[in-house]
Amino acid sequence: MSERTYTLVASCPDQVGVVARVSQFLAELGGWILETNFHAEPADAANPSGRFFMRLQLRADSITLPLVTLREQFAHAVAEPLQMQWRITDSAVKKRVVILVSKQEHCLYDLLARWQAGELDVEIPCVISNHQTLRGIVEWHGIPYFHVPVTPENKPEAFAEIRRIFDEAKGDVMVLARYMQILPPELCDAYAGQIINIHHSFLPSFVGARPYHQAWQRGVKLIGATCHYVTPELDQGPIIEQDVIRVDHTDTPDEMIRYGKDIEKAVLARGLRYHIEDRVLIHGARTIVFR
Amino acid sequence: MSERTYTLVASCPDQVGVVARVSQFLAELGGWILETNFHAEPADAANPSGRFFMRLQLRADSITLPLVTLREQFAHAVAEPLQMQWRITDSAVKKRVVILVSKQEHCLYDLLARWQAGELDVEIPCVISNHQTLRGIVEWHGIPYFHVPVTPENKPEAFAEIRRIFDEAKGDVMVLARYMQILPPELCDAYAGQIINIHHSFLPSFVGARPYHQAWQRGVKLIGATCHYVTPELDQGPIIEQDVIRVDHTDTPDEMIRYGKDIEKAVLARGLRYHIEDRVLIHGARTIVFR
Amino acid sequence: MSERTYTLVASCPDQVGVVARVSQFLAELGGWILETNFHAEPADAANPSGRFFMRLQLRADSITLPLVTLREQFAHAVAEPLQMQWRITDSAVKKRVVILVSKQEHCLYDLLARWQAGELDVEIPCVISNHQTLRGIVEWHGIPYFHVPVTPENKPEAFAEIRRIFDEAKGDVMVLARYMQILPPELCDAYAGQIINIHHSFLPSFVGARPYHQAWQRGVKLIGATCHYVTPELDQGPIIEQDVIRVDHTDTPDEMIRYGKDIEKAVLARGLRYHIEDRVLIHGARTIVFR
Amino acid sequence: MSERTYTLVASCPDQVGVVARVSQFLAELGGWILETNFHAEPADAANPSGRFFMRLQLRADSITLPLVTLREQFAHAVAEPLQMQWRITDSAVKKRVVILVSKQEHCLYDLLARWQAGELDVEIPCVISNHQTLRGIVEWHGIPYFHVPVTPENKPEAFAEIRRIFDEAKGDVMVLARYMQILPPELCDAYAGQIINIHHSFLPSFVGARPYHQAWQRGVKLIGATCHYVTPELDQGPIIEQDVIRVDHTDTPDEMIRYGKDIEKAVLARGLRYHIEDRVLIHGARTIVFR
Repeated sequence: MSERTYTLVASCPDQVGVVARVSQFLAELGGWILETNFHAEPADAANPSGRFFMRLQLRADSITLPLVTLREQFAHAVAEPLQMQWRITDSAVKKRVVILVSKQEHCLYDLLARWQAGELDVEIPCVISNHQTLRGIVEWHGIPYFHVPVTPENKPEAFAEIRRIFDEAKGDVMVLARYMQILPPELCDAYAGQIINIHHSFLPSFVGARPYHQAWQRGVKLIGATCHYVTPELDQGPIIEQDVIRVDHTDTPDEMIRYGKDIEKAVLARGLRYHIEDRVLIHGARTIVFR
Repeated sequence: MSERTYTLVASCPDQVGVVARVSQFLAELGGWILETNFHAEPADAANPSGRFFMRLQLRADSITLPLVTLREQFAHAVAEPLQMQWRITDSAVKKRVVILVSKQEHCLYDLLARWQAGELDVEIPCVISNHQTLRGIVEWHGIPYFHVPVTPENKPEAFAEIRRIFDEAKGDVMVLARYMQILPPELCDAYAGQIINIHHSFLPSFVGARPYHQAWQRGVKLIGATCHYVTPELDQGPIIEQDVIRVDHTDTPDEMIRYGKDIEKAVLARGLRYHIEDRVLIHGARTIVFR
Repeated sequence: MSERTYTLVASCPDQVGVVARVSQFLAELGGWILETNFHAEPADAANPSGRFFMRLQLRADSITLPLVTLREQFAHAVAEPLQMQWRITDSAVKKRVVILVSKQEHCLYDLLARWQAGELDVEIPCVISNHQTLRGIVEWHGIPYFHVPVTPENKPEAFAEIRRIFDEAKGDVMVLARYMQILPPELCDAYAGQIINIHHSFLPSFVGARPYHQAWQRGVKLIGATCHYVTPELDQGPIIEQDVIRVDHTDTPDEMIRYGKDIEKAVLARGLRYHIEDRVLIHGARTIVFR
Repeated sequence: MSERTYTLVASCPDQVGVVARVSQFLAELGGWILETNFHAEPADAANPSGRFFMRLQLRADSITLPLVTLREQFAHAVAEPLQMQWRITDSAVKKRVVILVSKQEHCLYDLLARWQAGELDVEIPCVISNHQTLRGIVEWHGIPYFHVPVTPENKPEAFAEIRRIFDEAKGDVMVLARYMQILPPELCDAYAGQIINIHHSFLPSFVGARPYHQAWQRGVKLIGATCHYVTPELDQGPIIEQDVIRVDHTDTPDEMIRYGKDIEKAVLARGLRYHIEDRVLIHGARTIVFR
């Protein structure tokens, strides 16, 4: 886990020779590849020749160039000729994850335990909440806790404040760990691809409020949870990860809520990890997840 | 599997003493109970005191009364005072299952294999199809095959013919094993609780046509299948059983169709078995399934 | 969750009329049954007529007798004639759970989050550990923490001390939440059916140390976790709950350890809940779990 | 499904530049890559620098060279310098699958349905059985059926006969679809990596006979099935695929056998597909499965 790595994530119009060009470039620098993923999406209106996606993870110590030079050379030799969207990240630079919570503790405890164990290898510059409920456990972990109440009247100010805190914390990703508030569209747009939510249903079923009650009414035999990027359309963003758990007629909505917590926290943790490790590429309404 | 059993399935307004009354009645006759399930649903408009559901399976040879007398005595001593809806079935009287298919073989082969092995302990008086495709394999198993073409023009006649065949075959249950035709509402109503469909999505997501293409568009990470009773509202009937299978960005709609077949046939087989063994009780839009 | 209930758990030699006798007794007292489970195990050497198991959950307020009188009458009228092993528990008397941990936090955090949320409705009189690592988080929750170092030399004294602490805490159940120490046989025997362990493999595969490394060597495609009662034979006790998660050739033993944590904590939490709610009955090497 | 493809499967000592060399070679020929998988295994005694595995699938029509020339050039330019073990297969040349069965039909029906639907894109030159039971359904599908009785006395002759039939059928892979006979070690060795078995347990648990009875005795809460290559050591060969299904205390061994059939056929079908599509590479006791 502790070996330093560089991760190249890129996409470009599909054509013959992309893999060759990238791998040739890296081989000439002596780059030792630890993990490789390639995927081609079929042609559509925006991508008449299809679109090619890739993720390569390298041992940082196999490349003698400084990272800034590596990036310059890659841009010049590979990315520009192939019209790539790309980035190269460095595992030594930890992502900064700002967590938003309300009153429910299950996702927060789960993330804190993973962070404490070093399993979730990120910085948590702060936690933001519309309640005081979880201040104690957060501060015990040495993490600053910001209380930003949200009311029907103060929404614009409250979310401006959240945005300010996030920016000041130099956040890379905002995690809605059962935050229970709907973010304003302009916030969703400003941080597109950076805000991750856990929704307590198997989307696209049971959008919106009280999904477990909806599930009980409909009599489904499995309930689910969905980790997705937040977009201005409620619960419609690109899905990163999902899972389900079996229920039956003996389970009340309250028991579904209890079971559901277990998949919510597991699905959020998996989805967040994929994002943190640069394994998720957004392509329209869908995601490529290189596990 | 071969021991002869009686199965009592019943529901009634909830009150203290229902279990005692039923079990007392059976104990006095020497009834040896093999399996017992009870369940109470909460009160609603139609059931102000809640509703109680039960299933009891008895060794037939532990009751010396003839079945007809058992039914009479049960009606008089238990069912009437408790305002029960009930039935007592006899495992020696096999259910008669009429299968409707189109061109796809996976569900049909699966049911035939289970029937051949004695695992699905039913009579199959006939198979009905709007195509000739699967005649050979059905007739090889010694089962009559009726070809009833369905066109936009002949729908009423075609479904009248299907109904005639089903009645003449003394069918107990009609199984739509990927039949691909929408049944007319009056047929659904006439055989309410007797028609079982397998839908190739995790309902309520992706109702209607081409659900795997819908699933691909939405970018879900699991696809599913749903076995449900058919009602006049398309894909809205009470759900008996569901399951899902994991997919990812590499899976095209065609591959989802292939994966989906595996859960379709498994979910249909489980749902049909629950129905055949009198394990499913319908309660409004939901089912109680005593597994 | 908050409604007060009595739970009757019992087993006896199988015969006609057990359900009738128990339900008759309860009905005469006006007992409102919320949940009922019955199960018969086949005959074996120790149980020549088979053995019957049951669990009934009642609304406490439907019985006007004091609990002590209810127990006396049940013993006299039902349990003695039927040669029952039985108990009636009261949801108002919370079980006392003593947790043993080592250095790993994932199961502990998970149990604390559930306890904090009121989802795990127990008392935690103390946590015992052979390390100081987790003292902070435990004490922050207001729970006493006992550090009992275990070395090859001091084993008898250490476990005598643990036993003393458990007794003084009036513990009902001892949970080994990845405790990593093997308990001495006499301790296992003295608290038979009261000590619950989570083993990090799908037993009976990969008994003993480093099960994920064993799993990697063998090339299995799923790894698992097992919650079981502790008996003097290592990892051989009756299994309460198990689950698995998919792995593939890209997963190193370290990654399996990480994935495994997620099922360890989920399986332990489910197994402990079943035990706490009096849903588990031990029958030789097997368990009946009335979910 | 119908597009013609070439599939390159290879492994070699790990070093910098393998991906570059292979992809460069293919790019120069205009090779359009449809699917790419790479994986490195850590160093061990036999592979001091680790071992690198790959699978690339190409559109056949993107390469203008004849396949024989492609193979020659690849051998010379890539495989020899990198000390590769490799093969290039052509989707237009269907694999020839010989199925061995005993009396149970579930796996056979399942494979026949997939073959009939074109989903399992292979030739089935014949089925071999030690019983006559399944002759009818096999011959109805137009597939020759060989009855080779196996008794304690005639084992050497019987398996010599099976080997003769397999060779004469030009079989590529032998599938033991619940064949229930132990193959002699010399047969296993002669066709190493070509014989696929489905074992009705979650290996390494419950090796050998009556695994569901073993599972019942041990009281496990999930039962499984394992698809693996056959080696001379019983049930010890490299595992291709596994899955499990939940059981509980109400399930008898007979019911476990019934549930188990559903995962046996699903796991065998998946494992066989991976093999047929050249997705499985054996590495000692383990497999790399490029799904």
